[in-house]
Amino acid sequence: MSAKSVSIGICGLGTVGSGTFNVLRENAALIAARAGVSVQVTHVGARRDNADCDLSGIRVSRDIFQVADDPQVTILVELIGGTMTARELVERAIRAGKHVVTANKALIAEHGNALFALANAHGVEVRYEAAIAGGVPIVKALREGLAGNRIEWLAGIINGTANFILTEMRDKGRDFADVLVEAQALGYAEADPSFDVEGTDAAHKLVILASLAFGMPLQFESVYTEGITRLEPQDVAYARELGYSIKHLGIAKQNGAGVELRVHPTLIPHRRLLANVDGVKNAILVEGDAVGPTLYYGAGAGSRPTASAVVADLIDLARATAFNDVRGLPSLGIERSELRDLPIVDMENVDTPWYLRMEAEDRPGVLSRVASLFSDQGISIEALIQKAPVYGETLVSVIVLTNRARQGNVDAAVGEIERLDCITGKVVRIRVEELDG
Amino acid sequence: MSAKSVSIGICGLGTVGSGTFNVLRENAALIAARAGVSVQVTHVGARRDNADCDLSGIRVSRDIFQVADDPQVTILVELIGGTMTARELVERAIRAGKHVVTANKALIAEHGNALFALANAHGVEVRYEAAIAGGVPIVKALREGLAGNRIEWLAGIINGTANFILTEMRDKGRDFADVLVEAQALGYAEADPSFDVEGTDAAHKLVILASLAFGMPLQFESVYTEGITRLEPQDVAYARELGYSIKHLGIAKQNGAGVELRVHPTLIPHRRLLANVDGVKNAILVEGDAVGPTLYYGAGAGSRPTASAVVADLIDLARATAFNDVRGLPSLGIERSELRDLPIVDMENVDTPWYLRMEAEDRPGVLSRVASLFSDQGISIEALIQKAPVYGETLVSVIVLTNRARQGNVDAAVGEIERLDCITGKVVRIRVEELDG
Repeated sequence: MSAKSVSIGICGLGTVGSGTFNVLRENAALIAARAGVSVQVTHVGARRDNADCDLSGIRVSRDIFQVADDPQVTILVELIGGTMTARELVERAIRAGKHVVTANKALIAEHGNALFALANAHGVEVRYEAAIAGGVPIVKALREGLAGNRIEWLAGIINGTANFILTEMRDKGRDFADVLVEAQALGYAEADPSFDVEGTDAAHKLVILASLAFGMPLQFESVYTEGITRLEPQDVAYARELGYSIKHLGIAKQNGAGVELRVHPTLIPHRRLLANVDGVKNAILVEGDAVGPTLYYGAGAGSRPTASAVVADLIDLARATAFNDVRGLPSLGIERSELRDLPIVDMENVDTPWYLRMEAEDRPGVLSRVASLFSDQGISIEALIQKAPVYGETLVSVIVLTNRARQGNVDAAVGEIERLDCITGKVVRIRVEELDG
Repeated sequence: MSAKSVSIGICGLGTVGSGTFNVLRENAALIAARAGVSVQVTHVGARRDNADCDLSGIRVSRDIFQVADDPQVTILVELIGGTMTARELVERAIRAGKHVVTANKALIAEHGNALFALANAHGVEVRYEAAIAGGVPIVKALREGLAGNRIEWLAGIINGTANFILTEMRDKGRDFADVLVEAQALGYAEADPSFDVEGTDAAHKLVILASLAFGMPLQFESVYTEGITRLEPQDVAYARELGYSIKHLGIAKQNGAGVELRVHPTLIPHRRLLANVDGVKNAILVEGDAVGPTLYYGAGAGSRPTASAVVADLIDLARATAFNDVRGLPSLGIERSELRDLPIVDMENVDTPWYLRMEAEDRPGVLSRVASLFSDQGISIEALIQKAPVYGETLVSVIVLTNRARQGNVDAAVGEIERLDCITGKVVRIRVEELDG
């Protein structure tokens, strides 16, 4: 084997940084055998040491920018998180002619277009396998493994915290707020959980997946995002009775009108593999025109799973660097000149089946009035179910499952329904996806 | 984009060959955008034309060796199947300095070591993503996506025909022979189905997966192979009652003693994702030391899914070829000098939980005699269940679920049990895997 070595600088020594440092060290011989070259961390930039990492013999800087300026470092690993300093750091590394590996989905989703252009101008690469679904090699699958396919759609469980909460709500009939407190105690959710439960984190990941799948620049501002905070246990239970699980999905779909980019709670049939992806795990279902449906599953976060993805990128780049690959892979898996700004479909025109629940007075004629309002909008109904009234209550839950219907039509029908005097409060609306591509 | 073009020669225009030809043509623009170079089929070698393929403007040879000899062809795609002529063809292409892409698992499993050595000597690559699990990019995942991990084990449903049969047996209580006839009618099983149902095809794939995972030369002759032909509907039903599905798995496991390589029917818990991979679909669960469990799922065969994998390999090689990558990936994902001939664990020493069924006389003392024979071998019992006797029968089924036990000890206990005069016939034995890595 080659006696060569590639020098790595790691910035950030938190959860993922320490995992990466330790995986590179523990599996050093195996990694060298796979890369064809030794992959050595020579410089660590971190505000403080981490007791999990033995930094002896390694240059340590409190100022992370010193890693970007270190001429010995060939590949800089950005694991500090955030978008302001991280962006400055990555730009400085690129300008210094270094390849960059990052786990930072916010950075790539929000600033990827500029960073990729800069990297291209400097003849270096930015890799980000770890930014989506932790250690699951989904970026590589879309960029290379399925490269012969026109990707038609993808749907993913790409936030482990939200999936943990939904799994507990379904399996134990618990409230959102109650499970959230437990998720925080377990370290799955941050003190400020809004990033996870409002869907921003999933939106970051979705926009990257969509760009890889469809060959378009990143369009973070175009993602429709709806969180899980308002989900009620009774809807989780009713969905279950009807043969569905509610999952928080990121969905990207390409059709004649453009691209749909949306993150929202979704009813999916129990028997689908995605419905059986529970707890903090992630999975992405991808439909290609040649391959049909494929699915990728694994840990979506955590120190060592995320490190696995960072190290995979490092091995690719180390091999390319050591053996003089003169031209790397394009950042989004497609030549820059071939990227196309595809139109994003307005949510009003997105077409899905729907689960709707309303609270109605328990008297004759209610169902027929509701049904006729759907019919007026051209919406056909798959099932209309009136639950037995709870003892002592005068209101009953009415559940409607529709066939595919434009959101615009559903909005109109729901507006009329909410004006009926036999209906109390707002209509609960959750999209359905059959995922039977 | 580059105006360059890479010339492809396809040998074999059957199911996969025609799929490959057509996917390359239909998705030509997208493939060029991803490869950075146009990927053009310029020569097809096939005994006869295929009505699904428009060969106008393309050189067609009835003698496939002319494709290997064509100086214009940069990458030869071997899709003729079999091992004799295919090997000659691939060797001739390699000697002529061409890269090779193949979907031929038998060829790789049985002759891969020699072919990889020859390719290495000639500075070309042999790629075989399509040889395992059709369009699922599992070779790329093991070779690159999980390259930072020490792989601990993998378990896969890697033969769609066998999985279709088992799914039907489980869901509809049908007999093996009965479903096999249907599988043949549907085109899922060959006229001679032994390759699929006796496990040879799965063994071919498993040995390739194991070499990629553990960094060892291919050892096809070392795989223990047990088919599904003797599975009885009552065991499928009893397994189901106990919370298990029976799947035909290929399992490779690395431990202190060496590597286990085995293909056999296996009880796995209902809730595992693998238990929910039904019909002709394939899936592989891989446990890495950093990433934990990851799973890859999709169509395991078929014209266009397999073409998807062939085209992915072509895009990788086309890009490398066009941009003068001076040194490709090693064939098994690890430098040749670092491959290690790991010892294979004797089946006698393989340790798993077991499902055992015996037919016993319905009288007192039988269970305790059976239990004591297990105890004599140091085997602890997880559950011992006597089924109610069928009306008019004097024999009852006794089901034993053991904890982990060496096969050698189970053999010994079963030998003693079969000698008991209260037991009739042979004891049915099926391994259990919890797959909870």
